[in-house]
Amino acid sequence: MDIILKEGERLDDLGRDGLSIIQNPAFFCFGIDAVLLSSFVKAKSGDRILDLCSGNGILPVLLSSKTKAKEIVGMEIQGELYEMADRSIELNGLSPRVRMVKGDLRKSRDFLGNELFDVVCANPPYIEEKSGIKSENNHLRLARSEETCTFRDLMAAGKRHLREKGHFFMVHRPFRLVEIFSTMREYGIEPKYMRLVEPYENKEPNLVLIEGIKGGAFELRIAPNLTVYKKPGVYTEEVLEMYGLSED
Amino acid sequence: MDIILKEGERLDDLGRDGLSIIQNPAFFCFGIDAVLLSSFVKAKSGDRILDLCSGNGILPVLLSSKTKAKEIVGMEIQGELYEMADRSIELNGLSPRVRMVKGDLRKSRDFLGNELFDVVCANPPYIEEKSGIKSENNHLRLARSEETCTFRDLMAAGKRHLREKGHFFMVHRPFRLVEIFSTMREYGIEPKYMRLVEPYENKEPNLVLIEGIKGGAFELRIAPNLTVYKKPGVYTEEVLEMYGLSED
Repeated sequence: MDIILKEGERLDDLGRDGLSIIQNPAFFCFGIDAVLLSSFVKAKSGDRILDLCSGNGILPVLLSSKTKAKEIVGMEIQGELYEMADRSIELNGLSPRVRMVKGDLRKSRDFLGNELFDVVCANPPYIEEKSGIKSENNHLRLARSEETCTFRDLMAAGKRHLREKGHFFMVHRPFRLVEIFSTMREYGIEPKYMRLVEPYENKEPNLVLIEGIKGGAFELRIAPNLTVYKKPGVYTEEVLEMYGLSED
Repeated sequence: MDIILKEGERLDDLGRDGLSIIQNPAFFCFGIDAVLLSSFVKAKSGDRILDLCSGNGILPVLLSSKTKAKEIVGMEIQGELYEMADRSIELNGLSPRVRMVKGDLRKSRDFLGNELFDVVCANPPYIEEKSGIKSENNHLRLARSEETCTFRDLMAAGKRHLREKGHFFMVHRPFRLVEIFSTMREYGIEPKYMRLVEPYENKEPNLVLIEGIKGGAFELRIAPNLTVYKKPGVYTEEVLEMYGLSED
């Protein structure tokens, strides 16, 4: 198949099942948080997954290899990213098992109706809109700050499209953990499992992976921390494996 | 000074400033959680500390050595424990800097009026009353289950007696973290700092230390985990130090 790359775009090998992804640094490039989340998501064969704030489709593409899900739908509001994700799905030959929908998750009923999924996941913007820390670039800003998707918007969409007892998986920043827990519980998606991610052993965690269950009982399990680097520039064995770079 | 020990009681050396504590295994013996909390509490010289659910007074006695607080008040509902704590304070010569008040924290205004403290700390019962996991022994049951002190009761008392911007320190179980965070925020004591305690390196944490600030801004910092044992029966250097057993 001919790969059509637009100006500024590049094609990155994902080191797994021959998959690759179209990226454009001016719009959005996936980071380690997407890779960690893709390994944290659990789905059974036959499950349907919805990925919110899907960006260039990195999660749906990775999950096509990392899970046995029957169907994976990515949702993205930005036209350029939606279209980039769509081309990545085509070039990897993942259609129709993987597909994108374009739209604002606050109005998801307009394009998803009352569809329910077994699994919902999200690598959402981390920065509150009011914080004032904003990128100049419009695309990067939408991907990073909560302009079109507050944490409440995210949980409302999760609740709307997750079946009862369905699982929700997310990566976020630990400094917002109190709000994350309160809001998840408020929207009926009970936090059940958490794993903190520390850059180096015994350093303060800077990411958190959270699994919730819609209508789940009130009890949180906390995993041992996940350590990213053994030393500067050298991933731990666990992270290498997530990147498909393990030596084993 | 003559030490009066009652039947079943023993006197335990605290390995710090010559301090010791009266204990009775039939009522309550302090555990590692009290030691961890006593090292987690920060108080400035001149501060007044209130310890809720004080038991046999282990926290007030340890804090007399670990902080420069001007005054430390322990609150306990059970008469036998209150009286045991009172004798420990006497035999250590800590009165009047350290003192106990006897009463139900749900009615603390009856015996503390509107007194405000700079620091409030608590090693509260961990088990919800409804859980049904209850000790046969009445004293142990009150110390472990929330019969006379739910988590909401605790936070209400904390809010009542903590000055604006005062610090709240607590040890609890991670499985209740969602409720802990939501309830703290609800009572205006914002979780600001958290440290998970793991029994061994890379094992699931089984205790959590939390610091909140009354009226604090919404931002949580998470510390690297605290590891208790290097191997079975051998504390890590950090924990040895907290016990006053460090070799340095």
